[in-house]
Amino acid sequence: MVPPILSLAEVAVVSLYTVYGLLQGLLHPESEQDKMALRAALRNTCGLSGLLSQRSSCSTHGRVCVSPVLVAPQRNNSTSPKIDVEFDQSTGVAVMRMQSPPVNSLSLDFLTEFCIGVEKLEMDKGCRGLIITSNQPKVFSAGLDIMEMYGKSPERCGEFWRAVQEMWLKLYSSNMVTIAAINGSSPAGGCLMSMTCDYRIMADNPRYSIGLNETQLGIVAPFWFKDTMVNTVGHRTTEMALELGLLYNPSEALKIGLVDQLVPEDQVLTTAAQAMTKWLAIPDHARQITKSMMRKPTVDKLTSNREADIQNFVSFITKDSIQKSLRMYLEMLKKRRA
Amino acid sequence: MVPPILSLAEVAVVSLYTVYGLLQGLLHPESEQDKMALRAALRNTCGLSGLLSQRSSCSTHGRVCVSPVLVAPQRNNSTSPKIDVEFDQSTGVAVMRMQSPPVNSLSLDFLTEFCIGVEKLEMDKGCRGLIITSNQPKVFSAGLDIMEMYGKSPERCGEFWRAVQEMWLKLYSSNMVTIAAINGSSPAGGCLMSMTCDYRIMADNPRYSIGLNETQLGIVAPFWFKDTMVNTVGHRTTEMALELGLLYNPSEALKIGLVDQLVPEDQVLTTAAQAMTKWLAIPDHARQITKSMMRKPTVDKLTSNREADIQNFVSFITKDSIQKSLRMYLEMLKKRRA
Amino acid sequence: MVPPILSLAEVAVVSLYTVYGLLQGLLHPESEQDKMALRAALRNTCGLSGLLSQRSSCSTHGRVCVSPVLVAPQRNNSTSPKIDVEFDQSTGVAVMRMQSPPVNSLSLDFLTEFCIGVEKLEMDKGCRGLIITSNQPKVFSAGLDIMEMYGKSPERCGEFWRAVQEMWLKLYSSNMVTIAAINGSSPAGGCLMSMTCDYRIMADNPRYSIGLNETQLGIVAPFWFKDTMVNTVGHRTTEMALELGLLYNPSEALKIGLVDQLVPEDQVLTTAAQAMTKWLAIPDHARQITKSMMRKPTVDKLTSNREADIQNFVSFITKDSIQKSLRMYLEMLKKRRA
Repeated sequence: MVPPILSLAEVAVVSLYTVYGLLQGLLHPESEQDKMALRAALRNTCGLSGLLSQRSSCSTHGRVCVSPVLVAPQRNNSTSPKIDVEFDQSTGVAVMRMQSPPVNSLSLDFLTEFCIGVEKLEMDKGCRGLIITSNQPKVFSAGLDIMEMYGKSPERCGEFWRAVQEMWLKLYSSNMVTIAAINGSSPAGGCLMSMTCDYRIMADNPRYSIGLNETQLGIVAPFWFKDTMVNTVGHRTTEMALELGLLYNPSEALKIGLVDQLVPEDQVLTTAAQAMTKWLAIPDHARQITKSMMRKPTVDKLTSNREADIQNFVSFITKDSIQKSLRMYLEMLKKRRA
Repeated sequence: MVPPILSLAEVAVVSLYTVYGLLQGLLHPESEQDKMALRAALRNTCGLSGLLSQRSSCSTHGRVCVSPVLVAPQRNNSTSPKIDVEFDQSTGVAVMRMQSPPVNSLSLDFLTEFCIGVEKLEMDKGCRGLIITSNQPKVFSAGLDIMEMYGKSPERCGEFWRAVQEMWLKLYSSNMVTIAAINGSSPAGGCLMSMTCDYRIMADNPRYSIGLNETQLGIVAPFWFKDTMVNTVGHRTTEMALELGLLYNPSEALKIGLVDQLVPEDQVLTTAAQAMTKWLAIPDHARQITKSMMRKPTVDKLTSNREADIQNFVSFITKDSIQKSLRMYLEMLKKRRA
Repeated sequence: MVPPILSLAEVAVVSLYTVYGLLQGLLHPESEQDKMALRAALRNTCGLSGLLSQRSSCSTHGRVCVSPVLVAPQRNNSTSPKIDVEFDQSTGVAVMRMQSPPVNSLSLDFLTEFCIGVEKLEMDKGCRGLIITSNQPKVFSAGLDIMEMYGKSPERCGEFWRAVQEMWLKLYSSNMVTIAAINGSSPAGGCLMSMTCDYRIMADNPRYSIGLNETQLGIVAPFWFKDTMVNTVGHRTTEMALELGLLYNPSEALKIGLVDQLVPEDQVLTTAAQAMTKWLAIPDHARQITKSMMRKPTVDKLTSNREADIQNFVSFITKDSIQKSLRMYLEMLKKRRA
């Protein structure tokens, strides 16, 4: 009764990373660098603040080099392996460029760096706005990294999921003006990241798509993904989008309100800078209180259910049936790439 | 101050059935068959599951003949007095055709059969999708049957209202993909039934209309009708729709999102089948969890207030003033039809 | 990093009144009449009902002359200093014309008169509908009066804020059909007043604008302003509108659903009357229960947090920094007008 392809998909837990990996015929190299210090911050429920304050005196030696205490030239350009942060103190605007080949998939390493980068900017009183974009061609971010879910211990899976939560919590409740400069496809976790921003500008390229397409792959967007989408496009559109795992092209995304503006691809970043000027014309204090008023109930819902949400994820992802499906899926990918 | 027609309407509790009855110059025959066994299921708060499991061994002798345990030919065609159920095991899709002349009004008998039909399909693991449509010309369903509200005992009124709740609960929380193939007008309870489905396709006939028009008749859509509509078209549109008792033609209904798609009348069912294929391409498990995540809060609200909601309805409908208005209204209908 | 204009605006608490005052080169005369009796009603948490019932026997001597017990001619035309109320007993519709020069700013006096006027109509069983419009050119209402926030005692500030709450509570939960005939600009508190109505008709003049633009002036719309807007235009549109303090021209306002209909300026009132006829065709009882069902949760939220909301406002507005900003702002206005 169920078409064969569904029998597989029904239990497959995959990241869109793999889909993009397939298209490009490669998987990103698993660079096993020593990131234990960074990861440790995410193991701690208290977040990154403690770590950052410890590290503030040696921030120029850290992997993320933007620092409010740095005696800085006009522009502080710093590059970490996965994220490039450029902070212009004259405008108060930082640009984060995701550059984790091939498709900016959200691995634990990536998320850790990302969260530390956001946290440092958040703590810098001079930084009022953040533009997030991609340095990778054709993709903003392909979402959660499947490799973080396969063959990992429950502890590691939990650590990964806490990092996903942390990314969302930091962005959705940021005091900065956040603008997503979506210069490529942005499925699943990439769409989530975009939706946390105050404003979304997408490249008007019909080949790009955006959406929470988890169900197409047999997995389920958790309640806080859902809440974020309901806040963005309303209940009914979210219901259909999530149940069908819909990916929208830019025109469709604009129509339903999933993005706010479409521009030619080479104007995404300049348009984001212009929009930022408009947002920064509003007094920070009034805007921040208003933003908190709009988003706090949604943020509080995850904050007060954070551990249970992690347990749910871990118990689901570590099931034998799910792991078996992942293995089959990965083997299929290897064959295709061979 | 109030136009004469309003003085009457202000206290009239009527079903749209009567409006359609007027148009067609007839009231449907009250066939007082022995349906006690079926009704008994609805008297039980525990629902139909118990009854169905008892009846499963003799389902071919039951009034609803679809059965998962039946050794079946390719298609099981079964006909009950008010609802025709056709289940295609090869596709996993069932089609329920409402055929209660003249306008598929939702009587206790109708609702009882309807709920049992849905429950049996729900329990059949082979049934993944349900299309609901009408075999009556020009009307999908005219909504609640006024005859169930006039001159009945409080017990009977309560039994009726529990059946209305049961219909909504079963459909709104169904694990099946549900598609409304709206091939005629769908006011009040008919609109509610449509809104419970995952997808709504309506015949593009400007003579047809859909909406919760209760206030036009002096009655009030209960909170779970309202919640369902808010989830479908948002707060403001619902507010105006319910306060004015608006009926929308198909184009208007599409514009506000009350239906999802318009097609020529003769293509409603085939389009529903095509849409079903698209919905069934999504792994059941992921889709069902997502659907539950979207709808559970709304379902829980009625579930935890079910008895109070029944009491509210019964105390309202059995008021002398309301019963008097009903009598006057029915007498007016008789005169017009004479 | 912050442009100079923002440093000021960041702490400036101003009413749009001042903006309009600037444009028109004048501030309205502060007519310090004896309004203690009226104000006293608002000091009482119990609202105006008590006062009104005391005054009902002498209503023709009161400042608001509309009275249900008055042996009336066809039309009762009464004029109070700030609000003109015309109640047509033959239609059951009252028209309130705001006429507080220059821009109908919402002072304590204005709000007190307004609330008493609404309350009297509310208590009149013959009054089923209320149309609110402006007698001032180019402006519906410019919102809260800045003079009520500058140099006033905490007690007086609290009294003022309670009056703002009372206006909202009365309008948002009115049993009458309320229609806003928006024949001019309607920023901030004027937009709030419009949004409480059941239906909004705006003059199609591109020079007019409407919106909750508080953040542009460094202040924040409180949660019940926000709730009202979310109920009207949805979560995402509200989020962006409030964070950016957006003012919409009539076409934009229609597009996002902030107003329901645009007509030429000279047809605003006649269109409102026509719309009222349509709304009054619905039985009052059913419409009122439905309206309450839609709005009660939002009303209850303020009712149960009313004192805390007042305390929040008072502690914010009486801060030295805020008062200093207000003084600077007012001095700037004086200079410009000189």
